[in-house]
Amino acid sequence: MKKKYLAEFLGTFWLVFGGCGSAMLSAAFPAVGIGLLGVSLAFGLTVLSMAYAVGSVSGAHLNPAVSIGLWAGGRLDADQLPGYIISQIAGGLLGAATLFVIVTGNGSSIADFAANGYGTHSPGGYNMVSAFVTELTLTFFFLLIILGATRVEAPSGFAGIAIGLALTLIHLISIPVTNTSVNPARSISQALFVGGWAIQQLWLFIAAPIAGAILAGLVHKLLAGQNR
Amino acid sequence: MKKKYLAEFLGTFWLVFGGCGSAMLSAAFPAVGIGLLGVSLAFGLTVLSMAYAVGSVSGAHLNPAVSIGLWAGGRLDADQLPGYIISQIAGGLLGAATLFVIVTGNGSSIADFAANGYGTHSPGGYNMVSAFVTELTLTFFFLLIILGATRVEAPSGFAGIAIGLALTLIHLISIPVTNTSVNPARSISQALFVGGWAIQQLWLFIAAPIAGAILAGLVHKLLAGQNR
Amino acid sequence: MKKKYLAEFLGTFWLVFGGCGSAMLSAAFPAVGIGLLGVSLAFGLTVLSMAYAVGSVSGAHLNPAVSIGLWAGGRLDADQLPGYIISQIAGGLLGAATLFVIVTGNGSSIADFAANGYGTHSPGGYNMVSAFVTELTLTFFFLLIILGATRVEAPSGFAGIAIGLALTLIHLISIPVTNTSVNPARSISQALFVGGWAIQQLWLFIAAPIAGAILAGLVHKLLAGQNR
Amino acid sequence: MKKKYLAEFLGTFWLVFGGCGSAMLSAAFPAVGIGLLGVSLAFGLTVLSMAYAVGSVSGAHLNPAVSIGLWAGGRLDADQLPGYIISQIAGGLLGAATLFVIVTGNGSSIADFAANGYGTHSPGGYNMVSAFVTELTLTFFFLLIILGATRVEAPSGFAGIAIGLALTLIHLISIPVTNTSVNPARSISQALFVGGWAIQQLWLFIAAPIAGAILAGLVHKLLAGQNR
Repeated sequence: MKKKYLAEFLGTFWLVFGGCGSAMLSAAFPAVGIGLLGVSLAFGLTVLSMAYAVGSVSGAHLNPAVSIGLWAGGRLDADQLPGYIISQIAGGLLGAATLFVIVTGNGSSIADFAANGYGTHSPGGYNMVSAFVTELTLTFFFLLIILGATRVEAPSGFAGIAIGLALTLIHLISIPVTNTSVNPARSISQALFVGGWAIQQLWLFIAAPIAGAILAGLVHKLLAGQNR
Repeated sequence: MKKKYLAEFLGTFWLVFGGCGSAMLSAAFPAVGIGLLGVSLAFGLTVLSMAYAVGSVSGAHLNPAVSIGLWAGGRLDADQLPGYIISQIAGGLLGAATLFVIVTGNGSSIADFAANGYGTHSPGGYNMVSAFVTELTLTFFFLLIILGATRVEAPSGFAGIAIGLALTLIHLISIPVTNTSVNPARSISQALFVGGWAIQQLWLFIAAPIAGAILAGLVHKLLAGQNR
Repeated sequence: MKKKYLAEFLGTFWLVFGGCGSAMLSAAFPAVGIGLLGVSLAFGLTVLSMAYAVGSVSGAHLNPAVSIGLWAGGRLDADQLPGYIISQIAGGLLGAATLFVIVTGNGSSIADFAANGYGTHSPGGYNMVSAFVTELTLTFFFLLIILGATRVEAPSGFAGIAIGLALTLIHLISIPVTNTSVNPARSISQALFVGGWAIQQLWLFIAAPIAGAILAGLVHKLLAGQNR
Repeated sequence: MKKKYLAEFLGTFWLVFGGCGSAMLSAAFPAVGIGLLGVSLAFGLTVLSMAYAVGSVSGAHLNPAVSIGLWAGGRLDADQLPGYIISQIAGGLLGAATLFVIVTGNGSSIADFAANGYGTHSPGGYNMVSAFVTELTLTFFFLLIILGATRVEAPSGFAGIAIGLALTLIHLISIPVTNTSVNPARSISQALFVGGWAIQQLWLFIAAPIAGAILAGLVHKLLAGQNR
């Protein structure tokens, strides 16, 4: 296996294990739980920490929508996409499987895990249109930040902070709407364990993030062009 | 459209979408809501993330008071102000319109959106004098930090962190007083959707931030002069 | 007035206004208050933001114990101390006076403001020995971090982040014990408005931080010496 | 005593004092307590602040599992391990003793201090398998981040942020499972004060972190090798 695929595999394991894990284990812990704020911070810090740990190896995408957006922005060759995406989905699944072992270790069921959903499966009861607009808008801005913060004109070294904390911000906004995806690998990893409704709604958490990411790749070319 | 105006348009969309959106969608979510601390973090991270994403394009002001303060501090030409301010107001409005679609997607009304207010419309019932002093003082220090952290003498690259987290700090202090503006574009974007009282009180959230910003521009010249 | 004293004056205004202000206005706001975590973050971010805004002018001490500790560590001339300390105390007092105007603007009394105390005036009822050990230990480590992070061997530019967030950490530990001082200027600014018990207990919040700071100056010389 | 051992002694004192101290003093403070989120932030900030304060002296390991993982990754000579580990354990113990003085200063007993445990001593009732998998996985990723963020290929100076906030993330995930160790020195410092069950369960919080750290050292060599 190429090093960069190993990096994506490990990094996406960490994103799912840390982000979804904190949601399942700590968010609603009695009296002192970390709440949605803590979960938002956890998701962001998985990316921030991996950006510095394996960024020099693979770029630390950890997300098929990110890889596709970087391709749309002219930063990644198309022939790299399959390897990146397969590694991300596989890492996410192993992260979810490890969480399964831990979470059930006090006799709990996994319930809905940390699956993404809309309508009756939205935490705040938001409909499909709200969910689609939310996921598309947030992934659009996520990629705009990723593409902008990694330009040579941007201050060197800071991209990992800007991108990681942007993912925190994205969760602060949208957990009540969709449980926040912006990442098909994260959504797939949970849906396969939950089954049923989570798999039926999975299309939105693949289509909307990828659409937002491609749109960002195009808009970024406007912002990054020569003339001001 | 010039690239820098597109950057300001997108950036201010993000500020309103992320900051006001987290307030409306997540702050008071039952049991695990992010509270005023999460909203404060969200506002700051919109600026932090945009500073690294589009700072090299437009400076990432995202706020008419910031643009005016930079003019007062000798950092921006007056002929740039109209383009910056119009882009900011337009971006904020589209961000608010997008939030309108999402927020009403579970059957909720928008209520007071995230509009700024004083007196009976202050979250904590603070009067007009408290509100004016608060907005003026906070915008004064916000601009002092912006002008100081972007000097050539300041450590390179860190301004986005200092400025973004300063906006978080500003919200930690003052959401109970005015719902925190320090940004006329943010206030306008909400008031136009709420109408009535929010438009009647809008003058304060234009006048006080701009007054504080101009004052900061003048004081900064004292701090940044040649002799120590 | 010398520029560096103006910087210390403004910076300590900001520390008291932001730190104590968030405690009084936002900490216990119903249902969505920022709690001690938000106040801790606010105190740290006043220092982080000022470190980048005026660090190149005055070093951004904002605290008499810091100035004294830097003197003990061989980083500041003794003849600078009076100017620094007077500027810090004056800035803190004006910050507190501005808070007075705002806080009373909804008909509230100032109660105990954000004064520091021990025994019956400790938030958690901790006695004088606990309070003294806490303030001395925390100021000792605060100065050790300040002295270490500003060495030429430390990564350039990061000191403002390390020092600001160290102050956040210090508050996360100790608000329940003493309401957290580690800063005589902050304590004086509150005690003068509260009077009575707050003035009687003020000695501890001057003596313990200064003792800890001087001790850190001495230990730092061991760590920073030539031979490893 | 060599400087680097003094640095490890002081740094691990700070980790235990700040991390465990915030848990005991502030986590469950009535109405405005910092909760598990605040404790997670505190642990991370002890490491972040020490990384910049003494990183240039000793590397700021503050944790026997970190020193062993760095040895397994080829970054530390084996003959350094005893000095590092002894200094870390001694510093942690003195930090715990200082906390003992403070915590009991309002008449409280120390109860279970901030000891680590599983089964009936897990905060959320998780069994031994959950606890072992959690500690091993988290320490594995902690070392992977440490080894990766300190490579010469990684952006210079950012390692302290990435590593400190990774420890925050680790606590956000796992306090409900084991009270979070990933650090034998931290676990030993608490168990010796609690005695009984805490000492009986101590083996897991020595074995699992060290196993995870050694595994990370080996995997890191795959990621950091020449060919991509």
